[in-house]
Amino acid sequence: MDPRSVGIVKAQSAHFAEPFTFRSGRTIPHFELAYETYGRLNAAGSNAVLVCHALNASHHVAGVYEDDATDVGWWDNMVGPGKPLDTDRFFVVGVNNLGGCFGSTGPKHVNPATGQPYGADFPVVTVEDWVNAQARLADHLGIRRFAAVMGGSLGAMQALQWAVAYPERIAHALVIASTPRLSAQNIAFNEVARQAIITDPDFHGGHYYRHGVVPVRGLKVARMIGHITYLSDDVMAEKFGRDLRDGLKYGYGTEFQIESYLRHQGEKFSGYFDANTYLLITKALDYFDPAAACSGDLVAALRPAAGVKFLVVSFTTDWRFSPARSREIVDALTANRADVSYAEIDAPHGHDEFLLEDARYHALARAYYNAIAEGL
Amino acid sequence: MDPRSVGIVKAQSAHFAEPFTFRSGRTIPHFELAYETYGRLNAAGSNAVLVCHALNASHHVAGVYEDDATDVGWWDNMVGPGKPLDTDRFFVVGVNNLGGCFGSTGPKHVNPATGQPYGADFPVVTVEDWVNAQARLADHLGIRRFAAVMGGSLGAMQALQWAVAYPERIAHALVIASTPRLSAQNIAFNEVARQAIITDPDFHGGHYYRHGVVPVRGLKVARMIGHITYLSDDVMAEKFGRDLRDGLKYGYGTEFQIESYLRHQGEKFSGYFDANTYLLITKALDYFDPAAACSGDLVAALRPAAGVKFLVVSFTTDWRFSPARSREIVDALTANRADVSYAEIDAPHGHDEFLLEDARYHALARAYYNAIAEGL
Repeated sequence: MDPRSVGIVKAQSAHFAEPFTFRSGRTIPHFELAYETYGRLNAAGSNAVLVCHALNASHHVAGVYEDDATDVGWWDNMVGPGKPLDTDRFFVVGVNNLGGCFGSTGPKHVNPATGQPYGADFPVVTVEDWVNAQARLADHLGIRRFAAVMGGSLGAMQALQWAVAYPERIAHALVIASTPRLSAQNIAFNEVARQAIITDPDFHGGHYYRHGVVPVRGLKVARMIGHITYLSDDVMAEKFGRDLRDGLKYGYGTEFQIESYLRHQGEKFSGYFDANTYLLITKALDYFDPAAACSGDLVAALRPAAGVKFLVVSFTTDWRFSPARSREIVDALTANRADVSYAEIDAPHGHDEFLLEDARYHALARAYYNAIAEGL
Repeated sequence: MDPRSVGIVKAQSAHFAEPFTFRSGRTIPHFELAYETYGRLNAAGSNAVLVCHALNASHHVAGVYEDDATDVGWWDNMVGPGKPLDTDRFFVVGVNNLGGCFGSTGPKHVNPATGQPYGADFPVVTVEDWVNAQARLADHLGIRRFAAVMGGSLGAMQALQWAVAYPERIAHALVIASTPRLSAQNIAFNEVARQAIITDPDFHGGHYYRHGVVPVRGLKVARMIGHITYLSDDVMAEKFGRDLRDGLKYGYGTEFQIESYLRHQGEKFSGYFDANTYLLITKALDYFDPAAACSGDLVAALRPAAGVKFLVVSFTTDWRFSPARSREIVDALTANRADVSYAEIDAPHGHDEFLLEDARYHALARAYYNAIAEGL
């Protein structure tokens, strides 16, 4: 095992017996959140860091499970002893979001009102809802204030929302590869993915569990679309180009390597991810728009976060959430005289870069966390 | 009716009794091509212009049909009396490509070998095949040499292929919004569209005609994906932004205007376009790569075209086939000392711009055609 791994970890579950009201106005009577922690909370309770996940990830941020040493946490290169987010110094919390499919209450779980799985009846979730649920988990864990909340992409939206909704409960927000709101093109990609799932005959209006099927075809297509937007044009050209697997076949099998890659990604994803959760998460992405409540004024929307310190990072080849989108956040924070560090990293891998061990990006994160640790 | 319209037009059909051999080695015993013509072939037979269509268009380039005055040709803003491609001076030919679904022999037609529709058994077509079939149509119409062959996107690939395969039969090639080959990302988008169609249970392995169904769901998703790539991020933001149709609903109906637009486009398309033809056309796009036969050397591949004169046009916001892709063509032609005019038009609408009445683009096409007309 990697000596810089947090090693064997165990998922835990927190039960919340009080009802939870969503932004939509809907309510669930009680819920569970699956989470993991690494490192130790110090006596002052001041060294906790919350890591928020993006689309397909979970509470399993780092380490491996005892029964499956191949199931490595999704941000294991970032989190561990001696890693940028150093678990020798920080108490790190990963949480599966509400509506998820890895243990937290979601569409697969039983709706107490019907005795059947929620399915499509699970309330539509928003980033605000997730953050409110995470705040309950923080209470449960005795964390009054996070040293930092960190995330990439949709995870970064949660970090930003923490800063806006609970500025007194976080000292730093690390906002990586993000945007203050989705563009029409971003929403368009999500909508195509949703239509692929919803129109799959095996979707059954979101109640496929009771039919013993899964909308595999729709999930595959949805994931293939996603993958195109995660990679830069250049890195796709470099990794796959126009390479053929086995010559031209003049047919619809896999001919180009890129086809093989995408089909494989779609196949893998449809084997473990819940379609209703996918729909919920794309909606949460679409809805996120803190400025909307302030007539589109992002400066006003971020005013409550002025006391939080920020690290904002973008990647030059990210065409999903381009650096220009991160600069909108930086500009609005700066207009509020917030303490903001911003880095635009010249890196080839597009949106996916935030998950990769890019040397400059990791050095930056390390330096930022070192400074936090020294101030604890 | 627009006084600058060619007016009422009539589709015609040419029958070719000799077998046609595809690049794949497969053969069909005979075929039809649907076509239209506007203007009059001059006595010298020197004023013919072939207009090649892209993905979803047809031989109906200009004018309207007697029984449907709303069915305006797809490039009516470019072709007509007094328009950039002036039908008072040129004899313009539009043709539905082989494998198409608007009259030319394609998957919907009966396979003489089985007495059933070809369906998925129709041979996979390539741009080379289309151009070879178009050359037969030129023979049929008594056109020894085209004054110009013109197209946008996939249509431009045909113009380029004409210049390479039949340089003695064309004087000018107008290559608009094109690329010498698809990138991995371009292929990826096509592959997702194909998977959406192929995995639709109503596809029935391409033999849906005999089941009396159409893979509507897959076609819709395919078309939605296509539309995202036709528009620029900016124009989508401007046209739709994050505008809502009727407030937030917290559900999966259409909430954002962009969703409504895409669903409408998908709906419309699935009502008139054949799924097998869509698959064939995306494959023709993926396969086009003249340089491949010359070990990737585009200069060598375009050498036969050195005697043809070119107008190459790209649009700044086209991210499907960016200006850089057109410049590859220009550079390779220039290296062959071909006569090339190149314009990179600063225009907002992305790939779709080639179909729009952009003032600078149309002025350029008009000037180019005027110069051709003066040399006739």
